[in-house]
Amino acid sequence: MFTEIINNVKRKAPLVHNITNYVTVNDCANILLACGGSPIMADDVLEVEEITSICNSLVINIGTLNTRTIESMIKAGKKANELNHPVILDPVGAGASKLRTDTTSKLFKEIKFSVIRGNISEIKTVYEGSGSTKGVDADIADAVTDENLNETIEFAKALSEKTGAIIAITGAIDIVANSKTAYVIRNGHPMMSKTTGTGCMLTSVIGAFCAANEKNLLNATAASICAMGICGELAFEKTTKCNSGTSSFKMHLIDFMSKMDAQTLKAGAKIESK
Amino acid sequence: MFTEIINNVKRKAPLVHNITNYVTVNDCANILLACGGSPIMADDVLEVEEITSICNSLVINIGTLNTRTIESMIKAGKKANELNHPVILDPVGAGASKLRTDTTSKLFKEIKFSVIRGNISEIKTVYEGSGSTKGVDADIADAVTDENLNETIEFAKALSEKTGAIIAITGAIDIVANSKTAYVIRNGHPMMSKTTGTGCMLTSVIGAFCAANEKNLLNATAASICAMGICGELAFEKTTKCNSGTSSFKMHLIDFMSKMDAQTLKAGAKIESK
Amino acid sequence: MFTEIINNVKRKAPLVHNITNYVTVNDCANILLACGGSPIMADDVLEVEEITSICNSLVINIGTLNTRTIESMIKAGKKANELNHPVILDPVGAGASKLRTDTTSKLFKEIKFSVIRGNISEIKTVYEGSGSTKGVDADIADAVTDENLNETIEFAKALSEKTGAIIAITGAIDIVANSKTAYVIRNGHPMMSKTTGTGCMLTSVIGAFCAANEKNLLNATAASICAMGICGELAFEKTTKCNSGTSSFKMHLIDFMSKMDAQTLKAGAKIESK
Repeated sequence: MFTEIINNVKRKAPLVHNITNYVTVNDCANILLACGGSPIMADDVLEVEEITSICNSLVINIGTLNTRTIESMIKAGKKANELNHPVILDPVGAGASKLRTDTTSKLFKEIKFSVIRGNISEIKTVYEGSGSTKGVDADIADAVTDENLNETIEFAKALSEKTGAIIAITGAIDIVANSKTAYVIRNGHPMMSKTTGTGCMLTSVIGAFCAANEKNLLNATAASICAMGICGELAFEKTTKCNSGTSSFKMHLIDFMSKMDAQTLKAGAKIESK
Repeated sequence: MFTEIINNVKRKAPLVHNITNYVTVNDCANILLACGGSPIMADDVLEVEEITSICNSLVINIGTLNTRTIESMIKAGKKANELNHPVILDPVGAGASKLRTDTTSKLFKEIKFSVIRGNISEIKTVYEGSGSTKGVDADIADAVTDENLNETIEFAKALSEKTGAIIAITGAIDIVANSKTAYVIRNGHPMMSKTTGTGCMLTSVIGAFCAANEKNLLNATAASICAMGICGELAFEKTTKCNSGTSSFKMHLIDFMSKMDAQTLKAGAKIESK
Repeated sequence: MFTEIINNVKRKAPLVHNITNYVTVNDCANILLACGGSPIMADDVLEVEEITSICNSLVINIGTLNTRTIESMIKAGKKANELNHPVILDPVGAGASKLRTDTTSKLFKEIKFSVIRGNISEIKTVYEGSGSTKGVDADIADAVTDENLNETIEFAKALSEKTGAIIAITGAIDIVANSKTAYVIRNGHPMMSKTTGTGCMLTSVIGAFCAANEKNLLNATAASICAMGICGELAFEKTTKCNSGTSSFKMHLIDFMSKMDAQTLKAGAKIESK
């Protein structure tokens, strides 16, 4: 199934509107180009509706949330909903502050999301409206493990039922689910958490994959996560071979995304349906 | 002619004030240092006049335009005009939203630009006050080709006549023109469009080259475009040789700019006067 | 003494709250992860107190100062003081504009800093409330040399006495001092000034080292500076060996920080007490 999905991205070169944070924005733009999409970053309230109208999907990332852009997020989201563009949410640090948690709730009231991607702490906050998020990384107590895997899958399905969005919980083990079907993905490498922006980049890639595969969002999201995970594995291999470090790792990761194709994706994907 | 131009940049180490976007700002700062200049990024309305006063040129880039910084752009631009500093405009995405198109017009009313650099869609928007810009990349229908080259040169000269600025239209084929003379430049590589920020970086480099060659802005702009294009060619060669990808490519490009000298520039420039 | 300091960073993985600039923010986040810390970037006035409360230290960097975040800096700083978290200041470009100089003064009135790190021009501005800062780089007239070393040490001690903060003056020769003790550090390489953000990155690393060594801030600051300088030396060696340029240099620098350990730090530190 992944062959058609990734080929659609390359063929359609979808334009992805990002309202995102200033920490990882350059990496997000670069990985969008690398995977075959095209990025636009625009966050002023006076232009977001127009910009999103010429795009194929919208990614909202609250990584450096500020009061100036919340209204922009809502306006862009509503317009994207109107136009039936996929809208992806990355609730970075939801649970770490009232502003982030409240904004996440507010966004849910105003916008219908197609996909929500976060670590387990952030996703729990989305569910509960409160959380134990320790900054922008998942709380250790919150890790998805083989022991709580089934339970977490049920939780993801329930949240998907509740929100209507595909839920992507990423970490050592990744879960992607709608209300009925779930995938468990075991790609990736721990070094991905030693460079900033791997989560944000993944969310932007999901934006491109969903834009090019509007009828198949669950699989498009799963394919993005596998692709990113495989890039992480290959990047780790190369980093080790070159005896280099975490900054080289990030470069290799984006490099491998720019070379990702259907064959590498199919051969490398460690995905099972649950 | 390029020897003196590039040597002036190295010798004078001009300070370039950038009011730019948050996507590619780090790359702009790094390539300014790489080419021999020195960057300052400052956009608050309370300090832009002072900052621009201690600098040698000003680069205005509307890549992530927001209402907070429009006034800063105007204040800095007027002060730079007063001091006879070169002022360079990169109208990123002009035509993609009313905010960008209107702001571009407004900037032209208030500021006298020395150089305007954009892709053909953006430059057409500057001319017409409207455009068909598809996001931040040039519309395919708008490409500069050998077929429409003469026509595009005439257009560039006319726009230079109209605005008083040197016009730099960059893409597969680059055109630099004032109202009387035009250069056609065929350096560069398509991979430059697969990494974000090559346009923004070029505009900042033009800022440095013009600051160090105030009496010779047309040639300084042409030299910047040749230098950047040669870096793109060398970076592509190295990326291919290393079998790496688009993120390595960007690193190599900045690396080669940090090693650019008069000899490499003279030997590699593919430029003809038209 | 450095063994325990660096091992504490790795063991405690301190969370560092950064209110910083949009030019080098990605590099700051990455080097924090590389050295063993964990970064949070958050600057909205509605969340900075909460965010700083879950962190172990606070870094305030005025690199792209704007009026929106000054209040955030003050609120976060006061909260961090209340909680006895180390608070580090990087007065980027202090002296280059009234806004920066005045804001620096204002921050001093409201916040008790643990460490202030800047180049000599910036630190002089902190002392005098005015300066000759040429942009964001130190004025050449201001260089610390062997000739004025003792004088500069006395100045650093006096400023520490006055502010209660550890003073870190970095450049070709680095000085770290409290009111009684000073260290002179001769690590580093001139190529560090040919890539943007080495100063900002160092300040963030100091944030991590101080957070993990609250009882020993002077030595933690000295260790950070030695570590960063050693990374610069190793990165230069590798850059030369690979015949690459300034962008590779930055990558190698972060790479080496991700591999820094007690042994490398002890063996490489060129530090003497004065």
